[in-house]
Amino acid sequence: MPNEIRKDYLLDRWVIIAGERAKRPTDFRAKTSAEETETKTKNCPFCPGNEKMTPPAVLLYLPNNNGIRKDTDHNGERRKDWLVRCIPNLYPALTSRRPVALTSNETFKRIDGVGVHEVIIESPRHTEHPDKAPLEQVELVIQAYVDRLKSLSRWNYVSIFRNHRKEAGASLSHAHSQIIATPMIPKTISDKLIAVKAKYQRTGVCPYCKIIESERNGPRYIFANESFIAFTPWASVYPFEFWLFPTRHQQTLLHLQNGEKKDLANALRTCLNSLAKILNDPPYCYGFHIAPTGEDYEYFHWHLEVYPKLTIQAGFEISTGMFINVTPPEIAAENLRKT
Amino acid sequence: MPNEIRKDYLLDRWVIIAGERAKRPTDFRAKTSAEETETKTKNCPFCPGNEKMTPPAVLLYLPNNNGIRKDTDHNGERRKDWLVRCIPNLYPALTSRRPVALTSNETFKRIDGVGVHEVIIESPRHTEHPDKAPLEQVELVIQAYVDRLKSLSRWNYVSIFRNHRKEAGASLSHAHSQIIATPMIPKTISDKLIAVKAKYQRTGVCPYCKIIESERNGPRYIFANESFIAFTPWASVYPFEFWLFPTRHQQTLLHLQNGEKKDLANALRTCLNSLAKILNDPPYCYGFHIAPTGEDYEYFHWHLEVYPKLTIQAGFEISTGMFINVTPPEIAAENLRKT
Repeated sequence: MPNEIRKDYLLDRWVIIAGERAKRPTDFRAKTSAEETETKTKNCPFCPGNEKMTPPAVLLYLPNNNGIRKDTDHNGERRKDWLVRCIPNLYPALTSRRPVALTSNETFKRIDGVGVHEVIIESPRHTEHPDKAPLEQVELVIQAYVDRLKSLSRWNYVSIFRNHRKEAGASLSHAHSQIIATPMIPKTISDKLIAVKAKYQRTGVCPYCKIIESERNGPRYIFANESFIAFTPWASVYPFEFWLFPTRHQQTLLHLQNGEKKDLANALRTCLNSLAKILNDPPYCYGFHIAPTGEDYEYFHWHLEVYPKLTIQAGFEISTGMFINVTPPEIAAENLRKT
Repeated sequence: MPNEIRKDYLLDRWVIIAGERAKRPTDFRAKTSAEETETKTKNCPFCPGNEKMTPPAVLLYLPNNNGIRKDTDHNGERRKDWLVRCIPNLYPALTSRRPVALTSNETFKRIDGVGVHEVIIESPRHTEHPDKAPLEQVELVIQAYVDRLKSLSRWNYVSIFRNHRKEAGASLSHAHSQIIATPMIPKTISDKLIAVKAKYQRTGVCPYCKIIESERNGPRYIFANESFIAFTPWASVYPFEFWLFPTRHQQTLLHLQNGEKKDLANALRTCLNSLAKILNDPPYCYGFHIAPTGEDYEYFHWHLEVYPKLTIQAGFEISTGMFINVTPPEIAAENLRKT
């Protein structure tokens, strides 16, 4: 396949797809898995028994007969028998405090850095990452995303993301996700909203609903169950990047029905498991693209984007905003589908 | 300093400047310098004597009495007595060949991946990076940028960039820069052109000329000589990021006068040397932002952006297009200025 330059479905983002010397999974396999590399320390602040090392939980899932009970740590208390634990980040990028008025002018624009930065500890078991956690545990994590999203909906946008392994920005190896609530709609989200809205208004149909149908039987398809589909996007920025969409049109995670949560857990777990198998537990990040809170964005169709971190974005990518992907998404999908 | 969210001078790009727990140079110092880590191999394809390992040079600077003579490798020949050597990249992202017509439609857009990808070997001496090369050698490298830019001006854009150390994407440690000529104007460049043009038309002055004057006596100033100025930008994306501008308004490197080339070499060398000193030769990338070829972009003011690679951009940054910078540019400038 000769090299070609592809445009994202909707964003003005161009990627050089380097098909001529396409890299295969064997070019990227991690030498060791996270479990082999990362010493499980007694001092992991996210492991049960060490709850005093972190702030009180804002949300706890506790075992309760055959179900779960939701609670928080009260005052000085730290519950130890949790299944999922959400806490404020000890080193927050944004903090919720009394806003400060900052001077701005035409050249130097700024706003106050208020917001929320939380950590979701996904399991009491240090290495129980979603690619191999029991399905019920992954479902609990998704439920925690939904619950925290609901609680933080006074902020303009809530970014839910996960960094796996040190090379992908995880400073602690215990299975965890993060949430940052911002006082503004981030650029990539607003760019997408604008592009989707324009196309929706012009054609009368959701462009992502159309993309899902196009990708379902195509060379970039990976996996589907009753309510979710996974595929590698046409203009993948990263080798082995894949996206997960709910097949039913919905603008945000808050609109997930109960069966859909299980299907999302299943789809996510299956795809991350394939990724871990073919690339030996590689570093990756994922992030949700959902509608902002507060307003109705019924034209938007939320999705989850998974970015394996196998290559380095350097001078060319940073200075131009163009990307080079050395694994065509068709080859990535073929390999992710096989396992 | 409380955290704040700053906007780039012109781009719609927002950065969380995390002042509350600002990181200092000691938090980022590399453990070893590139020279200590990277074994100088006999088989370096960029070292003199190994020219057969790479394609024939498209441009050579050869010593000639007290000056230089410009030439190329002819046919099977490989000159060994060069001062700077420009060659086609053996693993090009884009290649110059007969264009292929590719089908595109509303959902799946693409264009043929034609272009040029070259390497500029900056010195016959393996580790002679610009932070410590003789001034004359850095000047030769800048002259090579200008010469190749001139030769490649039939392409819509020519990106000139440098990746230093493996962590910043350099696959070979021998001092080198790269050039990628693309069949389109990359996104970040076109975004800047649009923003600069709009402001120029509205105010009648170049916004960058105005920014240079604002930064000259401010807390982000680093260095200046007769024709260049360096400062850390207001909404720096990376810790210790800095930009270099010619003080005389000019749209592209092709408009550099001879004295200005020496001043650019001096400014670049001085700032990279400060960076290497305070952070122990850290990985970094740099990229030129110049006007595209072919048309007149007289409103544009070219500059060079230097991005130290000290932190990892992960799930939050990738999925939102917002950034977190843990070193306010005022602290970065204070340290870069001191050395």
